[in-house]
Amino acid sequence: MRKVIIGVMGPGEKATDRDKQNAIELGKFIAQKGWVLLSGGRNSGVMDAVNKGAKEQGGLTIGIIPTNNNTQTSDYIDISIVTAMGNARNNINVLSSDVVIACGMEAGTASEVAIALKAKKPVVLLTNNADAKVFFKKLNPNLIHIVSTPLEAITVTSKLLK
Amino acid sequence: MRKVIIGVMGPGEKATDRDKQNAIELGKFIAQKGWVLLSGGRNSGVMDAVNKGAKEQGGLTIGIIPTNNNTQTSDYIDISIVTAMGNARNNINVLSSDVVIACGMEAGTASEVAIALKAKKPVVLLTNNADAKVFFKKLNPNLIHIVSTPLEAITVTSKLLK
Amino acid sequence: MRKVIIGVMGPGEKATDRDKQNAIELGKFIAQKGWVLLSGGRNSGVMDAVNKGAKEQGGLTIGIIPTNNNTQTSDYIDISIVTAMGNARNNINVLSSDVVIACGMEAGTASEVAIALKAKKPVVLLTNNADAKVFFKKLNPNLIHIVSTPLEAITVTSKLLK
Amino acid sequence: MRKVIIGVMGPGEKATDRDKQNAIELGKFIAQKGWVLLSGGRNSGVMDAVNKGAKEQGGLTIGIIPTNNNTQTSDYIDISIVTAMGNARNNINVLSSDVVIACGMEAGTASEVAIALKAKKPVVLLTNNADAKVFFKKLNPNLIHIVSTPLEAITVTSKLLK
Repeated sequence: MRKVIIGVMGPGEKATDRDKQNAIELGKFIAQKGWVLLSGGRNSGVMDAVNKGAKEQGGLTIGIIPTNNNTQTSDYIDISIVTAMGNARNNINVLSSDVVIACGMEAGTASEVAIALKAKKPVVLLTNNADAKVFFKKLNPNLIHIVSTPLEAITVTSKLLK
Repeated sequence: MRKVIIGVMGPGEKATDRDKQNAIELGKFIAQKGWVLLSGGRNSGVMDAVNKGAKEQGGLTIGIIPTNNNTQTSDYIDISIVTAMGNARNNINVLSSDVVIACGMEAGTASEVAIALKAKKPVVLLTNNADAKVFFKKLNPNLIHIVSTPLEAITVTSKLLK
Repeated sequence: MRKVIIGVMGPGEKATDRDKQNAIELGKFIAQKGWVLLSGGRNSGVMDAVNKGAKEQGGLTIGIIPTNNNTQTSDYIDISIVTAMGNARNNINVLSSDVVIACGMEAGTASEVAIALKAKKPVVLLTNNADAKVFFKKLNPNLIHIVSTPLEAITVTSKLLK
Repeated sequence: MRKVIIGVMGPGEKATDRDKQNAIELGKFIAQKGWVLLSGGRNSGVMDAVNKGAKEQGGLTIGIIPTNNNTQTSDYIDISIVTAMGNARNNINVLSSDVVIACGMEAGTASEVAIALKAKKPVVLLTNNADAKVFFKKLNPNLIHIVSTPLEAITVTSKLLK
């Protein structure tokens, strides 16, 4: 009965336009596949965009909120899990996801990729940050999957779920 | 867009037959109302029973899991949030719920009632433990609502949501 | 090599004068015994008073801080453990303590007593709240130890450590 | 009154001989400086070695333990903070440290470096992993300080504390 959960992690305020455009597409695809979308849940950057995309396609969206209320929660979140534990909630993000997709790259996203590897979760990397790709791929070649487009991210995710 | 979340907290292994019967009824009512059910998510006692009741009526069920995987997750959980943080996850349970219903009473449930009061969340108490009712009601008369049946718990919860 | 840690839990802003006087005495005794003092660490109520008492006697004081910085940390804390996880840090307070002493009673303190029972930690209760004494003693007669003075709390704690 | 805390993060089972040798030296220097040593606290790899070094010089050692008891705690830990929250405790490690020293590199260490940058904490990197150095330095040039020896790590840490 348990639903498949795909976690999409990415920058908030530091997201680039391309990160946000990729996030909208990822959200749409995830909803179309019937997967539940999980994210950090804030109303900013990749978090906001991926949930917007998912809701446009009627998906179900879960936000793992770092603060102790919903004043910064994305309007596109259906289910708000209020943790009040700051960035320690990043561990919950990855443990609750069947596959983690990193869309963009900054310090918070890097922590989620790293902690996903520690937890043996497969990670799909969609970023222009060439150094991140080299570093994480060498850190764990089996768990890191590098892609170039949202569609490729979804194709790889589908295979990983089998 | 954010959905109403009702948290039902109660004993696992120490649940009485009456606790479990009450939990099944609470789950059915919550699903019929269209509210999302949130619980501690384990496959035991009140946690298992309330999710069973909700799924019988087609509800949506969220489990906030204390361990780092789903080996002890109730079969009636749709969305499993894996926290790996033991009883510290009780804080997430209450912060994420619009209303907290305590069904039965043991140490873990008592911690959730207490932490809900600390977070200014309304709590509906459905228990035979007379000492718990006296203690918590005096601790915060405004937030504690004592009821005798699952139906009364739902009626009070409906009023609290307005 | 690991040092004995005694956790003292109690109200912040809601502490009574008697709670704070008791806390100062508890802190002094704990330092004199050579035990490490652990508390919630804020600069308020029982937390501030117990650390003040311990430092007057040259003790070592640990604060488990709920926020993400030290702006509200007691001046009498030697070692500040910054959790940024709000009241979820209460679980760390009890798990890290060999014995938990509750000095006074409000919702946060009640959550710590309850979660200590869940974790099978011995709890010494020093409070005027008669309902709390009845409720918690029945919840777990073996782990709850009711005392009337700081000195009695220390005597009981000494026995529990053996 | 609050003591300076230096966090040393590094691999457990995956630590190299060089990582462990560096960790012993770091621990000795930290104790000699009179700083408190904070680490992940387990009896393995860099965590065990750095605490061993600090205790040889009479330092004070704090372990932030991921599990819910002390069965895997290093024998060289004075103060064991038992979190029961797995790798989510990495956030506590960095928030509690005035400076974070990464000694060696694997997924868990990478998560701590990344989350330190997110929290605006200075990080001293002592590792042979050239890709980590490139990736993290570009991610935040101001906060990342790359060094080649334990002594250099201590010299940089001293400057950062001023």
